[in-house]
Amino acid sequence: MKVFHKIKDLRDELKSHRINQTIGFVPTMGYLHEGHVTLLKEARRKNDIVVLSIFVNPTQFGPNEDFDQYPRDFERDEKIASNAGVDYLFYPTVDEMYPNELKSTMKVTKRVDVLCGEKRPGHFDGVALVVTKLFNIVGPDDVYFGLKDAQQVAVIEGLIEDYNIPVTLNAIPTVREEDGLAKSSRNIYLSEKERLEAPSLYKSLQKAIEDIKNGEHNVELLIEQIAQTIKTETSGTIDYINIYSYPNLEKIDTINGKIIIAIAVKFSNARLIDNIIVDI
Amino acid sequence: MKVFHKIKDLRDELKSHRINQTIGFVPTMGYLHEGHVTLLKEARRKNDIVVLSIFVNPTQFGPNEDFDQYPRDFERDEKIASNAGVDYLFYPTVDEMYPNELKSTMKVTKRVDVLCGEKRPGHFDGVALVVTKLFNIVGPDDVYFGLKDAQQVAVIEGLIEDYNIPVTLNAIPTVREEDGLAKSSRNIYLSEKERLEAPSLYKSLQKAIEDIKNGEHNVELLIEQIAQTIKTETSGTIDYINIYSYPNLEKIDTINGKIIIAIAVKFSNARLIDNIIVDI
Repeated sequence: MKVFHKIKDLRDELKSHRINQTIGFVPTMGYLHEGHVTLLKEARRKNDIVVLSIFVNPTQFGPNEDFDQYPRDFERDEKIASNAGVDYLFYPTVDEMYPNELKSTMKVTKRVDVLCGEKRPGHFDGVALVVTKLFNIVGPDDVYFGLKDAQQVAVIEGLIEDYNIPVTLNAIPTVREEDGLAKSSRNIYLSEKERLEAPSLYKSLQKAIEDIKNGEHNVELLIEQIAQTIKTETSGTIDYINIYSYPNLEKIDTINGKIIIAIAVKFSNARLIDNIIVDI
Repeated sequence: MKVFHKIKDLRDELKSHRINQTIGFVPTMGYLHEGHVTLLKEARRKNDIVVLSIFVNPTQFGPNEDFDQYPRDFERDEKIASNAGVDYLFYPTVDEMYPNELKSTMKVTKRVDVLCGEKRPGHFDGVALVVTKLFNIVGPDDVYFGLKDAQQVAVIEGLIEDYNIPVTLNAIPTVREEDGLAKSSRNIYLSEKERLEAPSLYKSLQKAIEDIKNGEHNVELLIEQIAQTIKTETSGTIDYINIYSYPNLEKIDTINGKIIIAIAVKFSNARLIDNIIVDI
């Protein structure tokens, strides 16, 4: 695995590969976990060359958010990346990515006023900017994002469509524990009792899908039933339960076409999120 | 020369060329004239494959501007393109370029509040959008724009920098008549007398460059001298005479580094523009 800090060096290296090999790209902010490794493995399986970027992007953090505190551990990441079969690790500085004042702005206007985007105004504008830059720097055939952050996937799908970006978006299903709990570094903050209850989040989603397949298409009722399951089976507090069209993330009354069911539940020391996307 | 209407068909065709040939791209709104032909010839000289796009882009016209009235003559354009050595002519419909509602906006925030941009709010946002889309569709090594529209060149240079677009911008000098008058389809609207006076625009710019080289670095004085020349030698009315830094297009008091001198002069039936860029 080779590490590059400069855009020009990475581009020069990738040039020869572009001729008859495909390039798979996984953009991250580092502090790699199992979710990232799943994306890298998928890239390794599908593409000839695997590029990973690690860049904590300042433009996607709000003024009161944790850009400085965001966890960083490059040595550890380097080992994980190398073990996952990464060919090239792109690790630029903020100055390399933003050498000059920007002369334009990109604003994501759809799909952002719900779920996590609602609570982080401007966040997805920063994501759109850095992802556009990274796509142009790497020039990948395939890019990989995790469906755990389904809204991010929807936003990037929108960008690719708006700007005709010549790349295939691979949205990778959430990795789960054997009992169905979505893997997350936050799961360790659950108490023993909470850990046993937590799989009910996914169970409630699966049950909703079953209900839909059995003919229940009333969104309000479905949300009520999910709430019922979570209240009955866990000690957590429901933050939100939403059903939207996907990827447009627009409110719907009746189930029809591709939809996402997304939930967030607060436990004593951890807020867990999960979602499921189905095409009816 | 092959004509393509669909993005997918053009991409499929260009795929094989990308391996060991370079692609030169000239994006236009059609109604081709000598300026466009100069860009195409330069592409023909430098690149293996020459792509021309003709697309009257609705997003760069204001609500009260002449999108519907903008001149179109595809048959004539097709002949000119073919004679200029174009390999592929991309001629999409509005629906092909904008099939769905946009989910984001691009706003050019610098270099646009002066010269022509000042009079057409939003114009360069539309240019930025369509140029980004076209660059992603064609994937060119080189793109060609005329320096007659120096502000457009500055804006696109900014885009390429902001988003790390992997393309080389070739800014082609303005084509001139033997007496120095910048070629323009509007020159035919000049009276015989005005036509004889009009070369004074370029002469006044050249004289300013001479003055600068001889040590005159005071912007206000230089502008005054240009105005003097135009007033003495022509019957036109000065619309503007500006000296800015280039490509940032910021106001300066003293000549230093790369600058643009841009002028616009109104004659009885035609408004002529010209500019000169120098690095001191």
